[in-house]
Amino acid sequence: MSEPVLHEQAARISFLLGTWQGAGKGEYPTIDPFAYEEEIRFTHNGKPFLAYTQRTWHPEKKHPMHGEAGYFRPLENGGIEIVLAHPTGIVEIQEGTIEGTRITTRSKLVGKTTTAKEVTQLERVFAVNGDVMRYEVRMAAVGQPLQHHLSAELKRVG
Amino acid sequence: MSEPVLHEQAARISFLLGTWQGAGKGEYPTIDPFAYEEEIRFTHNGKPFLAYTQRTWHPEKKHPMHGEAGYFRPLENGGIEIVLAHPTGIVEIQEGTIEGTRITTRSKLVGKTTTAKEVTQLERVFAVNGDVMRYEVRMAAVGQPLQHHLSAELKRVG
Repeated sequence: MSEPVLHEQAARISFLLGTWQGAGKGEYPTIDPFAYEEEIRFTHNGKPFLAYTQRTWHPEKKHPMHGEAGYFRPLENGGIEIVLAHPTGIVEIQEGTIEGTRITTRSKLVGKTTTAKEVTQLERVFAVNGDVMRYEVRMAAVGQPLQHHLSAELKRVG
Repeated sequence: MSEPVLHEQAARISFLLGTWQGAGKGEYPTIDPFAYEEEIRFTHNGKPFLAYTQRTWHPEKKHPMHGEAGYFRPLENGGIEIVLAHPTGIVEIQEGTIEGTRITTRSKLVGKTTTAKEVTQLERVFAVNGDVMRYEVRMAAVGQPLQHHLSAELKRVG
C-alpha cells in the first residue's frame, strides 16, 4: 500500500507525527516518586485523526511499566478531542485546544472498570519544539485533589 | 530485549494472541450494509493483560475504514474487563466472562466526545476455534435499540 496523504484535519497536529523516545518522572501523594523511560508513536492513515500509542519501562530494570493507546481528533474550530484507553482499566475523553504546537486538554470523562483504581480527573499538556516534546499530566485519583503527576521530555527519533 | 514470559493472568486468554486477518459485514438501520477486510493484533508484554489493535479497510478500494485500540484484562474469577478507544470519538468499558475460548461482554460504560455520534450500548462476543476467530458486535446508537451490527471471521496469520 502506498503512503496515504495526510488529512487536512490531521495536519493541524502534524507536529506530533513520528516516534519519540525519552524519559519522565512521576509523583503522587500515595506512592513513591518514580522515573521511567518512554516511547510514544503518532501515526496517521489518511483520515482526520492521529493514532497514539505510548509505553514506558523501568530505566534500569527495563521491565514494562505503563501504557496507553488511543486517538487524537483535531477539530475545525482549533479544538481537539482525545480518546484513550489504559491497561490499568481506565478510559479517558480529553477535550481542549491546539495553540501553535501546544495541546492543552482536560478530561470530559474518566471511566474505570470494576477492578480499576479510581481516577476522577486528568489534565494533559503536550508541547512540541522542533524535535523535542514535553508533556505534563495532572491527576485527581484515589481521593486526592487534582495535582501534578507526570512530566517527561522526549526526542523525535523517527 | 528478550521475549517476556506470558503472565498467568494474561494466559487465560492466550488463545487470542497473534495477528488475525479476515473479513466482516456490518449493518444498521441508519446506514447501508457494508463489507470490510480486517486485521486484529493481540500482543503481551509480560503483564496481566493483552494489548489489542484492530483496523479495517474497504475490500476493493482498500482505503481505511474503522479502527480500535485498547486492552483486555482477564480477572482471577473468570471474568474479563476490556477498555477500548475508537477514532470516532468513542471509549468503551466492557465487562463479561471467559468461557473456554469464548469471551462475552457488554458495555458498563460508553463515552463520547462532544462531536462524536451517540453510541449508548455495545455487546461483544469473541469466539476462537484453533486458528479461526469469529466475533459479533451488537450496538444501540443514534436512537436505535440494541441490535446486531457487525460480524466477522478471521484466521490467525502470525
